[in-house]
Amino acid sequence: METDSPFGYDGSVMVKRNPNLAALKAGYLFPEIARRRREFAASHPEDPARPETRIISLGVGNTTEPLLPHITAGLAEGARKLGTVEGYSGYQDEGLPELRAKIAEVFYSPARCAPSGGSFSIDEVFISDGAKCDIGRLQLLFGAGARAAVQDPSYPVYVDGSVLIGAAGPWAETGYGGITYLPCTAENGYFPDLSPLPENSLLYFCSPNNPTGAAVSREQLTELVGAARKKGCLIVFDAAYAEYIRDPALPKTIFEIPGSRECAMEINSFSKPAGFTGVRLGWTVVPGELRYAGGERVNADWARIAGTIFNGASNIAQAGGLAALSGRGLAEIRELCSFYLGNAALIRSSLEKLGVPCTGGDNSPYIWARFPGRDSWEVFGEILEKCRVVTTPGSGFGPSGQSFIRFSAFGGRAGVEEACRRLERLV
Amino acid sequence: METDSPFGYDGSVMVKRNPNLAALKAGYLFPEIARRRREFAASHPEDPARPETRIISLGVGNTTEPLLPHITAGLAEGARKLGTVEGYSGYQDEGLPELRAKIAEVFYSPARCAPSGGSFSIDEVFISDGAKCDIGRLQLLFGAGARAAVQDPSYPVYVDGSVLIGAAGPWAETGYGGITYLPCTAENGYFPDLSPLPENSLLYFCSPNNPTGAAVSREQLTELVGAARKKGCLIVFDAAYAEYIRDPALPKTIFEIPGSRECAMEINSFSKPAGFTGVRLGWTVVPGELRYAGGERVNADWARIAGTIFNGASNIAQAGGLAALSGRGLAEIRELCSFYLGNAALIRSSLEKLGVPCTGGDNSPYIWARFPGRDSWEVFGEILEKCRVVTTPGSGFGPSGQSFIRFSAFGGRAGVEEACRRLERLV
Repeated sequence: METDSPFGYDGSVMVKRNPNLAALKAGYLFPEIARRRREFAASHPEDPARPETRIISLGVGNTTEPLLPHITAGLAEGARKLGTVEGYSGYQDEGLPELRAKIAEVFYSPARCAPSGGSFSIDEVFISDGAKCDIGRLQLLFGAGARAAVQDPSYPVYVDGSVLIGAAGPWAETGYGGITYLPCTAENGYFPDLSPLPENSLLYFCSPNNPTGAAVSREQLTELVGAARKKGCLIVFDAAYAEYIRDPALPKTIFEIPGSRECAMEINSFSKPAGFTGVRLGWTVVPGELRYAGGERVNADWARIAGTIFNGASNIAQAGGLAALSGRGLAEIRELCSFYLGNAALIRSSLEKLGVPCTGGDNSPYIWARFPGRDSWEVFGEILEKCRVVTTPGSGFGPSGQSFIRFSAFGGRAGVEEACRRLERLV
Repeated sequence: METDSPFGYDGSVMVKRNPNLAALKAGYLFPEIARRRREFAASHPEDPARPETRIISLGVGNTTEPLLPHITAGLAEGARKLGTVEGYSGYQDEGLPELRAKIAEVFYSPARCAPSGGSFSIDEVFISDGAKCDIGRLQLLFGAGARAAVQDPSYPVYVDGSVLIGAAGPWAETGYGGITYLPCTAENGYFPDLSPLPENSLLYFCSPNNPTGAAVSREQLTELVGAARKKGCLIVFDAAYAEYIRDPALPKTIFEIPGSRECAMEINSFSKPAGFTGVRLGWTVVPGELRYAGGERVNADWARIAGTIFNGASNIAQAGGLAALSGRGLAEIRELCSFYLGNAALIRSSLEKLGVPCTGGDNSPYIWARFPGRDSWEVFGEILEKCRVVTTPGSGFGPSGQSFIRFSAFGGRAGVEEACRRLERLV
């Protein structure tokens, strides 16, 4: 086609868009919430002289409190070292060996993991820049042919990652074709009936759960592993909130369960326990025992993916991670989680006083509040209008999230207290 | 199948491996080099008392020199701030607005980019954790249906990323089916004949080039943009080594070329100019004008991918990036690049003294040395045996890399000087 372009022809790019991108429904949940918040703020401007006009966010699960001193010092020292001949370091695809060893020691001790086979070697622990990023990358292990099952509701990245890699069918009203949604409802205590779990599928399972706040018991997790092994499924276990567990009877990793190493990998993160949402550090455990249907080792492929399209987490973040796993660092993690759990207790009791049925908030920073018969986005809008509080509509996490609202306990204490007072306007 | 497992059945995972992983040939190049180095070191142990037994690496392009003071201080301050109420920050998917603005100002000034349309807005600059990671993620823009063309030789990640997403055919002797290899040879001055470039393809192009060290002239880059627009191609321009350009006549970004915004995105990184290989920081520019065949904006999809499976670069690395782009930081970048270019000059002149024809090393940290009629891995082995110097075999970068060796200038001065002396043993 001749035009007046400097090239004497049209010059348009004729490379096609990945059809999986078109299949990805609407925006990712949190940008959509941010958009609605901006719209509301534009029509209801905040007035610094009137604190009651301030919009308070109990929406995104983004940490808000400063890092504690020992961990901060570890990060700063990690940075300072890079300016020295002895301390400088470059690429480290799979992570600092010391950090891999420390994670294995602290979170997967031989005693804790005895039921599944004892300790882990550092070759089974891979350092990442966070759980979300690893969930994106792990799609490459299974590709477009995978069949995924998720808790419903669940963290949107499992499904969105599956859509991007082409492992989901088209969207139809409340969910994607080809994805099995396992309802977690008030009726089943937020632990799903596993009978619809398809054979040979990839099962994403998060506990303590985002968004319901429910933490699986040892019996439930044993049932889950049993069902997975019976059906030839591979579990991607997301333990990003494990450090919020306060009930000593609850398992903190799937590797406390017999038979788990042969059917599960575990994703975890420093984001929520250590406040590293901006620092970016996480890990994934891929047991040497874990194999695909064809017998190939998943662990070897994960190392290969790390080397091929990833270059490792920041060495400064890793230095901070090492500090976080020292005795003092672990005490700081406990202190930080306890602070957010304090927020969670306030939010939950405020809601319960209003007669709103809730789960979560005890072993999790999320409270899952039920508004029977109501539409999630409508309740979201009402809370925003009446209370100037941003929440997350439950339907954004899956069809069974309809009529629920997720409250996040990540916030300063004064803001959370003020939000709790304002919630009384909902009556 | 009944077995003696605790489940009373086999319990094997029946989830299949992504067939694209099986298609990925052998190991990624650098792990393979590391393996051969380890093997050599095991049979030829280093003796600390005899410096001549030390193995010197001019292999992987991994920076070795400490960060300079202003940039180090910026990183440490970024860490320290996270321990304060005012300075704490969490998620920031697309990057700090100040850093995005500073990158636009420093590298894509209105004057420099006038030929393609002037300045860039911050919405066109996306902060990443490095070029390799963004090359991995950008596969999702185009998916398995994309048809890729690469310079031959080229950085392996373009092809390996294409293989992982399913956009390549099976491996056959020297290359993948479905990938167009554009030979860059001594005969064509390492700038390819573009006539075999397929219509509607994705063209990965790196300048200054890894591994050849060749930097395109303005005329060549204009020819490239013209060819892309004539054929409906989209250029992924990798400018990760642009700060090594010392010849003021050479373009440092593709956006110096008229018509480029409509057909190109540019990937870049702080790794090589600022020594951030371990710190992890890069960026990608996706002009608002860039559209797919169907007219959809690539920029909007890139933002969506960032929000869906990425959570941004470390905020500490971003603080370091801001320091690196201040006046003092830019002086440090220039100093660091000049240091490595000094190494490059030593290596190139040593090789030339031996009669080895070379390119690169003047506007690039890589020297591309030619050993006519020889096999790359054989020359690699000979240099390792005779000189105890690790290099990179050219054939690892593509079929036209056969009979070449890439020498990397990333190393301490004393080691580089010693390596240069030892190279005389090759005569």
